[in-house]
Amino acid sequence: MTSINKNYLNLKQNYLFYEIGQRVKNFSEKNPDKKIIRLGIGDVTLPLAPVVVEAMKKAAGDMADAATFKGYGPEQGYEFLKDAIVGYYAGCGVALEADEIFVSDGAKSDIGNILDIFGEDNKVLIPDPVYPVYMDTNIMDGRDITLIDSNMENGFLPLPGKDTRADLIYLCSPNNPTGAVYSAEQLKQWVDFANSSGAVILFDAAYEAFISDKSLPRSIFEIDGARSCAVEFCSLSKTAGFTGTRCGYTIVPKELVRDGAELNKLWLRRQTTKFNGVSYIVQRGAQAVFTDEGIRQTRENIDYYRKNAKVITDALDRLGIWYCGGLNSPYIWLRCPNGMKSWEFFDFLLREANVVGTPGEGFGKCGEGFFRLTSFSDRASAEEAMARIEAILKNN
Amino acid sequence: MTSINKNYLNLKQNYLFYEIGQRVKNFSEKNPDKKIIRLGIGDVTLPLAPVVVEAMKKAAGDMADAATFKGYGPEQGYEFLKDAIVGYYAGCGVALEADEIFVSDGAKSDIGNILDIFGEDNKVLIPDPVYPVYMDTNIMDGRDITLIDSNMENGFLPLPGKDTRADLIYLCSPNNPTGAVYSAEQLKQWVDFANSSGAVILFDAAYEAFISDKSLPRSIFEIDGARSCAVEFCSLSKTAGFTGTRCGYTIVPKELVRDGAELNKLWLRRQTTKFNGVSYIVQRGAQAVFTDEGIRQTRENIDYYRKNAKVITDALDRLGIWYCGGLNSPYIWLRCPNGMKSWEFFDFLLREANVVGTPGEGFGKCGEGFFRLTSFSDRASAEEAMARIEAILKNN
Repeated sequence: MTSINKNYLNLKQNYLFYEIGQRVKNFSEKNPDKKIIRLGIGDVTLPLAPVVVEAMKKAAGDMADAATFKGYGPEQGYEFLKDAIVGYYAGCGVALEADEIFVSDGAKSDIGNILDIFGEDNKVLIPDPVYPVYMDTNIMDGRDITLIDSNMENGFLPLPGKDTRADLIYLCSPNNPTGAVYSAEQLKQWVDFANSSGAVILFDAAYEAFISDKSLPRSIFEIDGARSCAVEFCSLSKTAGFTGTRCGYTIVPKELVRDGAELNKLWLRRQTTKFNGVSYIVQRGAQAVFTDEGIRQTRENIDYYRKNAKVITDALDRLGIWYCGGLNSPYIWLRCPNGMKSWEFFDFLLREANVVGTPGEGFGKCGEGFFRLTSFSDRASAEEAMARIEAILKNN
Repeated sequence: MTSINKNYLNLKQNYLFYEIGQRVKNFSEKNPDKKIIRLGIGDVTLPLAPVVVEAMKKAAGDMADAATFKGYGPEQGYEFLKDAIVGYYAGCGVALEADEIFVSDGAKSDIGNILDIFGEDNKVLIPDPVYPVYMDTNIMDGRDITLIDSNMENGFLPLPGKDTRADLIYLCSPNNPTGAVYSAEQLKQWVDFANSSGAVILFDAAYEAFISDKSLPRSIFEIDGARSCAVEFCSLSKTAGFTGTRCGYTIVPKELVRDGAELNKLWLRRQTTKFNGVSYIVQRGAQAVFTDEGIRQTRENIDYYRKNAKVITDALDRLGIWYCGGLNSPYIWLRCPNGMKSWEFFDFLLREANVVGTPGEGFGKCGEGFFRLTSFSDRASAEEAMARIEAILKNN
């Protein structure tokens, strides 16, 4: 008789976005005349850069002719794309070899699949609040998980202490959901901790392109010592609007050895066995992102979102509401005013301003009393939403 | 200290294609004037169908405009593609619901990833010779594997016997590497075995589009009772030349319950947690495959390969060499003539006819003494290769 993976029974349903949808639906049905503005959206809305679209059309054309047709490509990605990524990192002062880069269909896949190469006995450390995938993928393997509090006291940037014990450490910077970004000095504390304890840092850099402060690290490999303790996941989803186009990459340095094994070789074996590479067409689009023109065009989109973030944070500044994120992140994480709890503020905003955001409590217990707004809307919606929020909170 | 997944240390390097490459390289260097023909290739060579290319160009264009831009899609695939697949199966008399279909980047990914939802204590049954991914993915999880002999006596179509014990059963029909295809009566024996013992059949239908004999099942769901015991993996790689474009799908019927759990729900949870869906552009291309014009155009390509297969099997018939496959499969699996072993025949063909094939022994011990040729070349190469082989074997 076939048995299932019993760890799946320990997964909780994530009701966050379902519950948001239900409350918005109920409100809309009762108030059909109200125009609801959504600042809870975690997905890009601007179209792909023209150079990316043209590169993909041309690549589709390559597939129409036997002379330029592409069959199976390397599971790890084409050299043309890996070389482009090497060049992109060189721009941050990070030297990589092409075979330290593994192209994939997105960071979410890799963040889940990387656990294949690790033992189930590893102790896992995850900040709270958190992107739910870190937690759920480890529950699926039955690993022992410890949460580390991320809160106002530590600026939503927890650091290792003398009691910290962990084998696998998840860090996300710029953070989802808080938008907080580690400084080089802070990341160095985690790198030193991992190197001295033999832990591995799983570093999620999906939002790196939103960093505008040049003193902040965009890659963990900007930190001395990271090559012997860290794996980095990145994605073109937010960098270049690829959420529906699907391309990301994972960097596993050759110096990263644990338990007598090179993790680069283990991951290569995993990917060549359970993956067949990313569509040639998509890889050509991704390559275009890293050209000079591609960087210019995609940065225009990011600047647009960044200005939306400024609309939001300027309003919060005028209201005197505490927040982090926004400047170097598409997310703005604010303290609910007047001591409201997350869902209380959600209902208040929906009812009084017809604005939808995301209750922080949905990302973990330390998110209670906080709220996430995002900059992925159009400008007019961000302006109108914040004008409404200012109006109701000034009168409050 | 981080630990690795120790099961990875039990994986053997698969030297098959590396060793072939080395022997061909050595021969070429010593014989630069010889024109080598490759009939070992397991990849398509004809370009994509025009309707598919046009659909992808149009979809790339959709991504250039905010009004038609697509961000995150459903992890399980767009309804437009799942509905097209439902229609394709209806053509074989198989009724599916759209939410029994999970679109992915390819069958190889799904065949590897499906093991996530099963316990590590399941006993696995794998035919020998075999596509190496079935074996390696189970070694990575530490499962107990039993091989079932696939040989001339059973026509390379092993059936369950009274001593058969298994929880997870891999079947591949049309088979890679042997090209053998199960009849409905034979598959029914496996379905009955799985239903009575509580096992699950993992059915790899990647080569279904090559079946020309209308009495042979193209899906395991053509067999009564399969919905309560089977998962089917399929791919557009060989159906429509998508090896470099990347799209496949997995079917998990709702009746499939084991250990108290609906496998459809477990797989949905796995995919929504560790996967973010296939590129919108690729899904539009895949949708075009299932239109009337798409089926007509892709079947033209398959007919081309099928005629190559006939060139090969006609020559083998004239030589009186035993083989299976070819008629309903891109693979031709032949017994090495004159009692030669697999690698002996490989060297003989390379040296005397300058033709490259694949030694059967590379797919498992029961492959010893056999050899795989494929139909994925151009016509002229297939004709020239078989003329050379006939010449050397007639004189032998």
